[in-house]
Parts: sequence; structure tokens; C-alpha cells
Amino acid sequence: MKPFVVQRGSARRRQSEKPRPRSGVRVWREFELIDLIRRTAAGRGRGDCLGIGDDASAHLPEAGFLELVTADALVEGVHWDFAWCDAYTLGRKTAAVNLSDIAAMGGMPRRAHLVLALPPIAPLVQVTDFVRGLVAELKIHGARLVGGDTNVSPGPMLVSLTLQGVVPKSEMLCRRGARPGDRLMVTGDLGSAGAGLWALQHSRRPQRLRTYPVRRWRRPIPRLAEGRFLARSGRVHALMDLSDGLAGDLRRLCAASGVGARVQAGQLPLAPSTRRSAAARKRLPWLLALQGGEDYELLFAASPADVPVLANGLRRLGTPCTCVGEVLPAARGLSLVLPSGEIVPLPPGWEHNQTEGA
Amino acid sequence: MKPFVVQRGSARRRQSEKPRPRSGVRVWREFELIDLIRRTAAGRGRGDCLGIGDDASAHLPEAGFLELVTADALVEGVHWDFAWCDAYTLGRKTAAVNLSDIAAMGGMPRRAHLVLALPPIAPLVQVTDFVRGLVAELKIHGARLVGGDTNVSPGPMLVSLTLQGVVPKSEMLCRRGARPGDRLMVTGDLGSAGAGLWALQHSRRPQRLRTYPVRRWRRPIPRLAEGRFLARSGRVHALMDLSDGLAGDLRRLCAASGVGARVQAGQLPLAPSTRRSAAARKRLPWLLALQGGEDYELLFAASPADVPVLANGLRRLGTPCTCVGEVLPAARGLSLVLPSGEIVPLPPGWEHNQTEGA
Repeated sequence: MKPFVVQRGSARRRQSEKPRPRSGVRVWREFELIDLIRRTAAGRGRGDCLGIGDDASAHLPEAGFLELVTADALVEGVHWDFAWCDAYTLGRKTAAVNLSDIAAMGGMPRRAHLVLALPPIAPLVQVTDFVRGLVAELKIHGARLVGGDTNVSPGPMLVSLTLQGVVPKSEMLCRRGARPGDRLMVTGDLGSAGAGLWALQHSRRPQRLRTYPVRRWRRPIPRLAEGRFLARSGRVHALMDLSDGLAGDLRRLCAASGVGARVQAGQLPLAPSTRRSAAARKRLPWLLALQGGEDYELLFAASPADVPVLANGLRRLGTPCTCVGEVLPAARGLSLVLPSGEIVPLPPGWEHNQTEGA
Repeated sequence: MKPFVVQRGSARRRQSEKPRPRSGVRVWREFELIDLIRRTAAGRGRGDCLGIGDDASAHLPEAGFLELVTADALVEGVHWDFAWCDAYTLGRKTAAVNLSDIAAMGGMPRRAHLVLALPPIAPLVQVTDFVRGLVAELKIHGARLVGGDTNVSPGPMLVSLTLQGVVPKSEMLCRRGARPGDRLMVTGDLGSAGAGLWALQHSRRPQRLRTYPVRRWRRPIPRLAEGRFLARSGRVHALMDLSDGLAGDLRRLCAASGVGARVQAGQLPLAPSTRRSAAARKRLPWLLALQGGEDYELLFAASPADVPVLANGLRRLGTPCTCVGEVLPAARGLSLVLPSGEIVPLPPGWEHNQTEGA
């Protein structure tokens, strides 16, 4: 769509003007950018009927599958800062957070649409690196970039990805379905990405980029194989991914399923570095696990009898899983058993745009 | 995803804080916003398997159809200004520009995902009105809002819609396919939305909102019935919608089809008000038609023998169509026949982020 703020001259005048390069930073032009994206994303996949550049993308649906669609955006200065997240890493992460949503349905990712809002003068190499990272992460998981839109933004850079995937009709898992008596299980460890973000914000040492928590924040791994295994097993009642901290996300799973839950603070899986980060910040380690976001691990509910089979299967995929609590009837609400044995209400999770004293 | 810039307090402290209302403008909270969107978008459609609020939306694909996906974003201060585009109108327009892309494939719209980036303190009534407008426009054309993402933006408001639609397998029309000898046809009139935008920017009289050009800019009508008719007819070789002005968009159709074209400036369909606007601005009226964007009319290529049937069919839908030129072999390039008979190269269209002297 045509933006209106950019001043327009006569056709003749516009033709004669070339963008002036300025130390690698330059005015980008939409069609040049689309060409760049098209070249980076080169290649069509099975079922794709059109390449990048038409009014819409088109694909043949797969028989026996449901189509999944998810959309997630990242905003410069809110979700990342170029001071400690290079464009390639940002591209990979943008893809990963969306891939994680497909994993959370037990699905397989297929194709993505990218919406970019960029300052009018931007380093093109940053955009190229971003798209390279995005396409690389999609490719690892069998998905492709097939379309999108580019825009000028007078504010910060914004990237928004819409990812389409599929899941066999009978295998889709969602947030509703957890039953009282179910065990609550999580993959991997919790709170480390939050600890990594804290390290990025509070340390300037270059070697921090190699630490486990920072790697967790910068390069989340979408649990696609794990999601597929859980969906195929037929033994899981409810599934979601953890993006906003266990406390907040579990609340949503319980609301969707119409149940309550009790979480054991002492059982929350914590990496040694997360414990060290908590000690350095004088915070309770299990609170980091409950409220630290961006872990992109899976949370699922299953009968106690099925837990050993599921845990074994996940272990064969190289992913540990831990029982962190159990599902209760709705009337029992949401509670947390502290390591001391005391039972308290589950603290709130992280909520977007939660400001202090605003 | 969890944003990091918003300062975090202890759980206890955060719970005790309520957003302070400030003359209708208030801090929004993500889950309140999602609830608001869910209530406004209420109702599931055929094939939808999940409501708003899971990790992804899910739907049953329709047998015999291709799935179409398009994404288009609008940025405050670039694509609209709340001074002369209220939130409800913006919502309708956001839907319309995406619906137009589905029309341009000969498709039928089905479901949409909305990504919102909002300042941390925003008038919630504006957001409600925006979603109401969006959902209303989608509903008129048989589509629904089924998912999305909300984010804080430290900059301007940004709305991005991804629209999914379907088209019968054998009927999809795209930009490639135009053949030398084809007539180039457009629906409706050209340049009026551009004239409307100019009026909005250069006049403060409230009655300007009721003029034809301003209505064209504020409320584009996606040509879905026309797109379906053209697709069903089997007589159209290439189809696209006009969002960036005929000169720019025709260039893309020709590039996709590997052909050249000649446009007759004297034949471009112009509304009387567009001619008056051109006179007031001392510009050539046909240049407005070539370079004015956001018309959201359809451009198609068809054999001369099929033109009368197609024109009649469109007229029965209440939509006039006009022959504006013809397709030539690629070697003949792109040219424009001026009203004087002189032949000149086709001027460039509008390109996003085209700045003067930047």
C-alpha cells in the first residue's frame, strides 16, 4: 500500500535521484527489498503454487490434515536491542518463536509470511542478515518463506511473522483438555532465557554471549519433534508452549480446560546457571522459573499412568521432562507448594505491557 | 512473547497496582485486550476448529480448493493519521486492503489473523472501534477474525493483517499469464483515492469527508464479486489489484508475464472530481490515474474477443470497466500514448519509501 508521508516529486525528478549511501546505511526501496527477500528465500516447496511476488501466496492443502496458522511480532526496543542481538540471530529467533507455536499444537510447519516495518533509512545488510537467519531457521524445520509485505516505519523496526503448518486431523493438541488428576509436565529447564536476558542487559562482557542462559535467550529451540511425538502418542490431554513464564501460561491452560492446578516449587527444573543468576540477583530461583519468559519449552497434561511412557519417549529425543505439579478440579484454584511445604496462591505470570506506576 | 523494556516489580507489588485512567486514555493489558478482541470477533465459522486464544488457529481445508494467504500492514503516520481517519474506518480499511488481495486472485476470503503493536498507553475505545470496523468489513465478505498477537510499541501504532482465503483449483488467477494482443482492462475509476488523500491532507473543512474522492480513500471497496466473476469466466489471462497506481502495478504484471504494454492516457477512467482535483493542483489528470495509489480496483488482461462478455458481466455486478491499453511483446517495452498522440515511456509508479533527496 502506498504510504502518504513520504513527499512526492514529479516523476522526472524522482527518476533522477539516487539514494545516497551513508556508511553502509542507505535508503531502501521496496522492490529492491522484495527482490532481496525473494533471492534469499529462493525455492518453492511441495504444494506451493506461486513464488513470492503475487497478490497472495497459494498452496494445495494436504488431505487428512488440519491447517494451523499462528502470528507473532517482535518490536525493536521491546523484544530485542541490536546492541546485543544481531540481525541474523533476530531472524532465527523470529522464526523460532513462531515455530514453537506450531510445536505447541503438535503440528509440522510449512510456510511463512513476513511483514517488515523498517525505518526509511536502514542498513540493508541488517535486513539481509535478518532474512537469512529467518529463512535458515525455517529451513531447519522444513518450512519456507513464501510472501509478505514491507513498510516504512517512522518508529522502531517491527517484524511480524505468520506461520502456517499442518497437523493430522486426529492428532491436534490444544490448551483445553486437561483433566483433574493429570500430571503437569514440562520439557527442558525453566527460567534460563529470562536469566540470559538479565545478563545481556546488565553485563557488557563479550564472553557473556557464550553462556548457557544467554544462548537460551538468543537461540530458542522450537520443540517441534517433541510436539509431534506427544501428538502422535495419543496420550496427552492438553499442550501449549511456555513463552510468558509457567505461572502465566499455566493459568491460560487451566482457564481453557476449566480446571485448577497445584505447582510444586521444589520440582521446577532449573539449570545450575539459573540458580547462580537468581543468587546474584537475590531472587528466589523457582520464581525465575515461574515468571521468566521466552523459555519456549512445552507444558503438557497427561494421566499419571502415561507419564513414564511419555518421559521415556522424550528422553529418546534427547529432551528431559519433569513433573511440576498436578491438575485439580476448578474449585481448588491455582496454588503453589513452596519448598517449605507452605501452600500459597500461584503468583501471576508475566503480562505484556505491565508497567509499574504507569 | 514477553517484552523486556517494561520494568518488572515483585509479583506482590504488581498485583496491587491498577492502571490509572487518564481522560479515556489508559494502560491496556494484553489479556484484557485479547478478551476484548475475542468478544468483538465472537463466533466461529465453517471449518474453524478453535476460537481465539490457543497457540495457533486451526481449520479444515476445503476439498478442491487452493489455500491463499496474504499479509498487509498499515503504520500510523505513514498510512493513516487519526486526525482524519477514525479507528472504525481504519479497521474497515485494514480489512479491505487485504480482502482486495484475495479478490486479485479470484478467491473467497475465509479467516484473518491480526497483529497489533500499540503504544503502552492507548485509548482502549480506539482499539475497540478498530477491531469492530475490522470485524464488520470481514463479515460483509464472509470472513472472520480467528487469531493474532498484541504487542507494545514504543513508536507509532502498527496493524498487520494476514488473510487466508480459498479459490477453486482450476480458477486461480495471478499476475503472470498476460499475452501479447490482450486488452488491458480496469474496473471502476482511477486516481480518486489519491485525490481524496490529497484533500484530507490539504483541507480542514469537515464536509470534505463526504466527497467522493475522500470516501474512496477512507472506504475502499474490495472487488471480491468482480474477482470471482473474472476467475469463474475462464476468459481472463492475468489479474491483480491496483494499490500503488496503474503505472507501478502494470509494470509488475508485465514483469510477471514477460510482456510489454502500451497504455492510452486518454482512455484512463477518471471521475469528474478527480479531474477537478487535478485542475486545482495544476496536475495532469491522467497522471493522477497512473500514479495515484490505493484505488483497489482490478486490472486484468483478456483477449479482445472476450472483452465484451467480461464487460457485460461486470456491468451486471454494477461495476463499469474500461480498456486502458494493450499487451505487447516484451521487446516493445512499456509505453504511454499521450492524449496528443505522442508516445512516451510509461512513467514510474509509486514506490514505497521513495524519498526526495534523502
